[in-house]
Amino acid sequence: MDKPNIGHHISKQFNTELEDTLNRVLAMGGLVEQQLDDGIKALIEGDAELGRLITTRDYKINALEVAIDEECTQIIARRQPTASDLRLIMSVIKTIADLERIGDEAERIGRMAVAFSQAEGSKKHFAGIESMGEQVKQMLHNALDAYARMDAEAAVDVWRQDRKVDTKYENITRQLITYMMEDPRSIPWVLDVLWSARALERIGDRARNICEYIIYFVKGKDVRHTSLEHMEKEVR
Amino acid sequence: MDKPNIGHHISKQFNTELEDTLNRVLAMGGLVEQQLDDGIKALIEGDAELGRLITTRDYKINALEVAIDEECTQIIARRQPTASDLRLIMSVIKTIADLERIGDEAERIGRMAVAFSQAEGSKKHFAGIESMGEQVKQMLHNALDAYARMDAEAAVDVWRQDRKVDTKYENITRQLITYMMEDPRSIPWVLDVLWSARALERIGDRARNICEYIIYFVKGKDVRHTSLEHMEKEVR
Repeated sequence: MDKPNIGHHISKQFNTELEDTLNRVLAMGGLVEQQLDDGIKALIEGDAELGRLITTRDYKINALEVAIDEECTQIIARRQPTASDLRLIMSVIKTIADLERIGDEAERIGRMAVAFSQAEGSKKHFAGIESMGEQVKQMLHNALDAYARMDAEAAVDVWRQDRKVDTKYENITRQLITYMMEDPRSIPWVLDVLWSARALERIGDRARNICEYIIYFVKGKDVRHTSLEHMEKEVR
Repeated sequence: MDKPNIGHHISKQFNTELEDTLNRVLAMGGLVEQQLDDGIKALIEGDAELGRLITTRDYKINALEVAIDEECTQIIARRQPTASDLRLIMSVIKTIADLERIGDEAERIGRMAVAFSQAEGSKKHFAGIESMGEQVKQMLHNALDAYARMDAEAAVDVWRQDRKVDTKYENITRQLITYMMEDPRSIPWVLDVLWSARALERIGDRARNICEYIIYFVKGKDVRHTSLEHMEKEVR
């Protein structure tokens, strides 16, 4: 199966519509990446102001989700797409839902940053979070990059990275539980760190979902709920 | 705007297809409800066997999601639906994504039940969970019932219930943190209870999402990310 090309329509207007939609998805992805970067930064640096700023910006991501969704419905109604055009629209609808929820998780991290900055937290608990944050940021960035190029092989690579994120998350959880048991007074704010780690783990899962939609568009195969091995076979 | 009627097509075949799809969504909803009921039961009663059973059944829900999604794409490609038909298909695509994730949360509760049954947990921690579980089960049930009847007013009522679930969740969290501080050895398994409460809270959010799709279908208005007041105005 050849890689579908979105610029193949006789109607130039239709080509433009599809390209515009994809560009809006990528712009939404850029906003979400910014929120995640700032969320991690606010948490690690104890920057309450930045944390609060994040919570005031989430509405932009929500608005983009609703607008792009409406655009997709309009395109289906007016253009009656089939085959790879329809798969593209479907992949957009699913991708923006995951992007919106990544935005929610980033907002959650922003709120934790505000709470944490007011607690007597120690920076020692952030060592794991910082490197997990880097992994997840990279994963989201690479997923959006693969989306921009509709590159199924790159999507499989990103999907594979999620295993490392999950392992990291398990290690951090174990470490934080030890801290809490050693110093029970720290429980409330160590829990905030734990929730943040959880949010990062979820963002990894959602970046992985986006990779599955790329493969669906390019290969015409729904690889959700299958194994990495199955996915590799489909993409090869 | 009158309530859309799905049985209005000249093509009997198309009517049947839409009805079949809706029936499959409701069957999927039934499976998800069962998983949630069993998850809460396994947790409260310390029933590890039931907990394990839940984890072996999640694949059925995943398979239904993929199959119904494919069916919707086929209907769009073949029938080129517009207006309320297209909104119906869009609401189905979104609803099954939320149902699948409610299934994931129920599976998570099942895994917690297995872990908890092996710990030296005390039942006193479950008082709040049990009644929160009842609230969330009721909420999901009512959301699916509103979906079956495509009843926008009932959807608003269910949406409203989520506030109570959120309040309950906050109270449970506070209580569990107190338990952990009083008895740090209990931290690992009290955390399992806390994760279960979190899973229930998320299920409430997703039941609320389903209500938003009902309103979208019936009223043609996307009420996501708006307020209860706005939603009530649209539905009235």
